[in-house]
Amino acid sequence: MSVTHPAGFVASGVVAGLKSTGARDLALVVNQGPSIAAAAVFTSNRAKANPVLWSEQAVKDGRIAAVVLNSGGANCFTGSFGFQTTHATAEAVATALEVSASDVLVCSTGLIGVGDQTFRDAILDNVPAAAAALSPDGGADAAQAIMTTDTKPKQSVAESAAGWSIGGMAKGAGMLAPGLATMLVVITTDADLPADVLDRALRAATRVTFDRVDSDGCMSTNDTVTLLASGASGVAADEGEFTAALTDLCRDLAIQLQKDAEGASHDISIEVVNAASEDDAVVVGRAVSRSNLLKAAIFGNDPNWGRVLAALGTTDAVFDPYEIDVSMNGVMVCRRGEPFESRDLVDLAPRATTILIDLKSGDAEATIYTNDLTHDYVHENSAYAS
Amino acid sequence: MSVTHPAGFVASGVVAGLKSTGARDLALVVNQGPSIAAAAVFTSNRAKANPVLWSEQAVKDGRIAAVVLNSGGANCFTGSFGFQTTHATAEAVATALEVSASDVLVCSTGLIGVGDQTFRDAILDNVPAAAAALSPDGGADAAQAIMTTDTKPKQSVAESAAGWSIGGMAKGAGMLAPGLATMLVVITTDADLPADVLDRALRAATRVTFDRVDSDGCMSTNDTVTLLASGASGVAADEGEFTAALTDLCRDLAIQLQKDAEGASHDISIEVVNAASEDDAVVVGRAVSRSNLLKAAIFGNDPNWGRVLAALGTTDAVFDPYEIDVSMNGVMVCRRGEPFESRDLVDLAPRATTILIDLKSGDAEATIYTNDLTHDYVHENSAYAS
Repeated sequence: MSVTHPAGFVASGVVAGLKSTGARDLALVVNQGPSIAAAAVFTSNRAKANPVLWSEQAVKDGRIAAVVLNSGGANCFTGSFGFQTTHATAEAVATALEVSASDVLVCSTGLIGVGDQTFRDAILDNVPAAAAALSPDGGADAAQAIMTTDTKPKQSVAESAAGWSIGGMAKGAGMLAPGLATMLVVITTDADLPADVLDRALRAATRVTFDRVDSDGCMSTNDTVTLLASGASGVAADEGEFTAALTDLCRDLAIQLQKDAEGASHDISIEVVNAASEDDAVVVGRAVSRSNLLKAAIFGNDPNWGRVLAALGTTDAVFDPYEIDVSMNGVMVCRRGEPFESRDLVDLAPRATTILIDLKSGDAEATIYTNDLTHDYVHENSAYAS
Repeated sequence: MSVTHPAGFVASGVVAGLKSTGARDLALVVNQGPSIAAAAVFTSNRAKANPVLWSEQAVKDGRIAAVVLNSGGANCFTGSFGFQTTHATAEAVATALEVSASDVLVCSTGLIGVGDQTFRDAILDNVPAAAAALSPDGGADAAQAIMTTDTKPKQSVAESAAGWSIGGMAKGAGMLAPGLATMLVVITTDADLPADVLDRALRAATRVTFDRVDSDGCMSTNDTVTLLASGASGVAADEGEFTAALTDLCRDLAIQLQKDAEGASHDISIEVVNAASEDDAVVVGRAVSRSNLLKAAIFGNDPNWGRVLAALGTTDAVFDPYEIDVSMNGVMVCRRGEPFESRDLVDLAPRATTILIDLKSGDAEATIYTNDLTHDYVHENSAYAS
């Protein structure tokens, strides 16, 4: 059900011929109201795809009636022709649904540089079919249609005792950037909340969930997370409760992304504790998550903790490198910058891996979600375009 | 000949039993004067190995009589016992050569966390043999003894018509960090130059050579580049001419490191031109050099230029992403942010690969030397400790 779980939403996923496999590749999510309040966050990459350039403007007034999403081409670095394709897509959806084109958000995912006449025709020719297929049960088809190298659709729902609910779908893995396919997320709710509350809640939730997934350090050009609120429950949700529920749902989707990252054989949680600030904890966790050497070692079930310390030593976070403790799956392999418990005690056979870093510099903490570096990652990303 | 090419230097490389293969693993390079002026630069990683902590102090007075180097263990994060090992090593060399221990520079390379009693004994027991083996022809043995996963020794010499010469040896690949073995470089000259000139020349040379090698984004804890000047030629070299010759020699060694990077199948030069500043050019080149997605694509001979743009879009350098040109091996695949010449024209079969990025924002430029991301890289770095 996912995005169609909350009241007031219909969705569809159809075959537009963008994927060579013939799988679903064009999705629509429509908010039937009574409210069409919305918020969205986008990639911070300065190289932004045409759909991102369009959608940043479309969401500025806090109103989105429909989201149209395609896989099979990112429509990024495709010039003015590509932007016109995005614009024409929004117009086609607007015509089919009798809404304003400026209330249509557009998302694309796939290879950068793909967005020619064939791409445009495939989308425009199939928008009417996507509109005709809209259904209160269409969430699963939509979640299928936005997949690229994902092996499974990612969906999540949450219910509040207060009478409102949230649903969400996601594909890819953002900075995990599977093959530069990109992270796209659509979240719906029937809570009755204005756009400014949705915006605050969405930024608070993504900051500690999607923004903390870092599988391969590569930031996408197309990342978009959208939150649509129909108000159909008739309940004005408490902002604090709503933000907490939204954060949990975003974390659930983020971890689904991590678990399906290309080629990964370990899901690694890098838990940084006792940092001087949350920013410091994030900086240290992210630096460690970007060490190819560490990630290759984890792939080989090798608890090479020296690579953790070498990575965090490149940051300017507050700590004394010779006071740090490092534990891997519960074994403190390094205490105060020296070998402590035997590395032979560390069991890295399970897919779930935890690296705990105690900076002993304060009481802030953060967890970064990453993956190992495997032969399959190299293979999939050397062969993506072929 | 390498480090023993300039007049006034002897060297050796012996077997101390640190390498399980039984290969040479302990090297000595000795400056016989008349001058023992010296300069050195070290890793900027805050997690510094014990030999780095020692050597930073030893070189402060601009005098170094001998450099002792071992492979088979980095002596990093080994606590006060490890620092005492470094100190004892300098004392042992001082005794054998009848010099001051504070004029002995120590370098170690190998696995982080290795530096126990066995390690200490192997070094201390074999310093006398290394001293006894010192010879004006010992440069090649020394270059062999500092190798870890290097497949070949790296050496270089330069001659000046003015009557002085420079010699150098290197191992590993610094931020390439082959298996967290580290970059160690010793450069010798018989030019008669004071320590402050050597320091200026060395910083100028390394800034545009070793500092621009970035194979896997991982900065080592043990990197050390040392320059020793004997003055034995009796020629006070012109500083400008000396710095230029030193820079060429450092570039030659840096490129030897790049060409022998673990598992690499492509040597990639990322040439950034028309940048607003040299710093901007370096920032952009380094961001591109750290894209695992791009590097996996190059491994697969796939000219995936979108991954170049996605990587540089994460920087704050001055440019308009939609004005940038990108050429790969001479084919302009992207012009002003749109597809231009066909990617099918790009031949990535040769090992030497050039990515030219025109930022159109000024007249500064820089080249970053990197490698592709291959199955062999993953294999070697998942199995290093075993």
